[in-house]
Amino acid sequence: MTITLASDFGTPYPAAMKGVLLRESDARLVDVTHDLPRGAIRESAFWLRETLPTFPPATHLAVVDPGVGTDRGVLVGRAKGHTFVGPDNGLLVPAARRIAGDEAVDWFAADPGDPASSTFHGRDVFAPLAATVHETVRSRGIDALGDLGRLSPTDPSGLRLPEATVEADAASGEVLAIDDFGNVVTNVAGKFLDGREAVTVNGDRVPVAETFASVDAGDPLATVGSHGYVECDVNRGSGAVWFGLSVGDAVRIAWT
Amino acid sequence: MTITLASDFGTPYPAAMKGVLLRESDARLVDVTHDLPRGAIRESAFWLRETLPTFPPATHLAVVDPGVGTDRGVLVGRAKGHTFVGPDNGLLVPAARRIAGDEAVDWFAADPGDPASSTFHGRDVFAPLAATVHETVRSRGIDALGDLGRLSPTDPSGLRLPEATVEADAASGEVLAIDDFGNVVTNVAGKFLDGREAVTVNGDRVPVAETFASVDAGDPLATVGSHGYVECDVNRGSGAVWFGLSVGDAVRIAWT
Amino acid sequence: MTITLASDFGTPYPAAMKGVLLRESDARLVDVTHDLPRGAIRESAFWLRETLPTFPPATHLAVVDPGVGTDRGVLVGRAKGHTFVGPDNGLLVPAARRIAGDEAVDWFAADPGDPASSTFHGRDVFAPLAATVHETVRSRGIDALGDLGRLSPTDPSGLRLPEATVEADAASGEVLAIDDFGNVVTNVAGKFLDGREAVTVNGDRVPVAETFASVDAGDPLATVGSHGYVECDVNRGSGAVWFGLSVGDAVRIAWT
Repeated sequence: MTITLASDFGTPYPAAMKGVLLRESDARLVDVTHDLPRGAIRESAFWLRETLPTFPPATHLAVVDPGVGTDRGVLVGRAKGHTFVGPDNGLLVPAARRIAGDEAVDWFAADPGDPASSTFHGRDVFAPLAATVHETVRSRGIDALGDLGRLSPTDPSGLRLPEATVEADAASGEVLAIDDFGNVVTNVAGKFLDGREAVTVNGDRVPVAETFASVDAGDPLATVGSHGYVECDVNRGSGAVWFGLSVGDAVRIAWT
Repeated sequence: MTITLASDFGTPYPAAMKGVLLRESDARLVDVTHDLPRGAIRESAFWLRETLPTFPPATHLAVVDPGVGTDRGVLVGRAKGHTFVGPDNGLLVPAARRIAGDEAVDWFAADPGDPASSTFHGRDVFAPLAATVHETVRSRGIDALGDLGRLSPTDPSGLRLPEATVEADAASGEVLAIDDFGNVVTNVAGKFLDGREAVTVNGDRVPVAETFASVDAGDPLATVGSHGYVECDVNRGSGAVWFGLSVGDAVRIAWT
Repeated sequence: MTITLASDFGTPYPAAMKGVLLRESDARLVDVTHDLPRGAIRESAFWLRETLPTFPPATHLAVVDPGVGTDRGVLVGRAKGHTFVGPDNGLLVPAARRIAGDEAVDWFAADPGDPASSTFHGRDVFAPLAATVHETVRSRGIDALGDLGRLSPTDPSGLRLPEATVEADAASGEVLAIDDFGNVVTNVAGKFLDGREAVTVNGDRVPVAETFASVDAGDPLATVGSHGYVECDVNRGSGAVWFGLSVGDAVRIAWT
């Protein structure tokens, strides 16, 4: 059984979470990333939704937590054999929903206990809780989670990723995320590009292509990215720079 | 059983240490970080002291080694079921002392053998030694370490993190470390802030707060950080920038 | 048994490969690095050749794949108990040859199947294939690889790292790689420095030294690096900056 770890901690704080986890559990630890965009809950939630569902049933610990130490809640989720542990700020909601599919996610509020610090709940609240959740599921099964006294059913803080508006020949959306390559991931469903040879992106005409290598190095393209959305990319370059786009920016894509 | 790895190697050199370790051991490998501040022994020692004690008994391999290839010694330590392997430059001393608590740490000088390179002892000296130490402890118990012919008792190179001077209404210390968030970790014990609503930091008056979110985004605060020290931070920003502080800088914190 | 992962993906895409691998395999996952120089096949091949041979027999998954989605092939290799999975662009050839030594590497072309995306074959082609290769070897032995219907013998795309020309008192080569420390790794065999106290590098006279600490901080040196080649380094500084060298640049090293 596996515990995945994700955070915006950079380095070396994730190591403290790993140490705490291994005190209580012999689980395999797998880093998702500790370079989630710092304090950016929505963009981080997008990346968790795109990566956590690739895993087999596991305990997913995720901490992007600008409200650390305030009265924001501590959340545990359960869906299809997976469990989720993190702050109740929406971070894990899209990932859990994606994994649950048509089923519901069971959400619980957890008693945070009396953490040693007010600024590092990853170490003092979430990692110990994830170890407890993991060991409970491992030894007694996922249904036993409901018996943990410190958990009580709750409705989590919502977070929905924005949806694009698609008209006959144009789609209006926004930039969900920009990856390390500089690829600009929009929220326009990829099928909008079906059968098109070119589109305009905020007025710039670019070819529609299936692969980066279809255009010359440094040239832009619109493509259906690995997330299923329209991406505004550059072969061997940065779409963010070429298109001048940042996370959250409006994007209008039109047929030509 | 676990071997933790820490270094200032960045990438991809840590992989060579992992390969060497796995040749000799089936241990779980856990990265602490390979982005310790390059060549900065004291600051790295701080981060190891703050992270390694969270782990259950393990073998801790750590390499920040500007004297690689010189006659600086090779050190093995033992405390409370943990073992430590690294250069004899003080790097691991504060972490081992923190783990040992009231007990003494047993330190050994190790014969470095005849390493293949003069510039990569992480691969050629420390990783093979850590594998040997780990497998000896795993198979024969931690007391067997004293029987390894290549180890002989030693006094390690000392390294003490500097201590602050606390007066009636002011404390004079320095910056121990700055984390990836830009939080400035001083060596002034957090209790200096007890009961204060504001302090001055090198003359700048800032509020004392328990959580980042207690102040507006971009605003400074003094807080008791997760290490137990006074930190000079900014909510959703960089304390290092706001306070103009670097590692090693003097910090005077005064009641107002 | 271990699966190693290497890529130029940065973050967080490697997590999707890990999730896919763990769906099919209980292998230990070890990150080599996900910061291989982006799209730079030859330099990445160098780093893989320098790190993968340190491992005991393992499945090595590596993806630096600027031709993703085109008709470039999918390659599986086998040598001395190790297996290799990646794009057929030369990336893994030097590492496999180094591991094989005098023996031949068996190479197979793999049917890529019908991947879900055209831009993320790490997730959709290479990780599932690596899991299959790994589980086949684990359960049925490495010879069983030849029985996998989707594999057929092939000659891989070649990639040879450039060789230096060594004359009586000078060597002409080029920069193979620059590491995170700024050390400049040339392709001139280290023995060229035997018995020399100084050399010129593109005309600049620098001392030959065995260790960084042999020269003052900030001063340059030529040394035999951990790869066995002449390196142009700076003690506690960047050789790349001091010598003004980039990957691929010509380097002429001469006796003085």
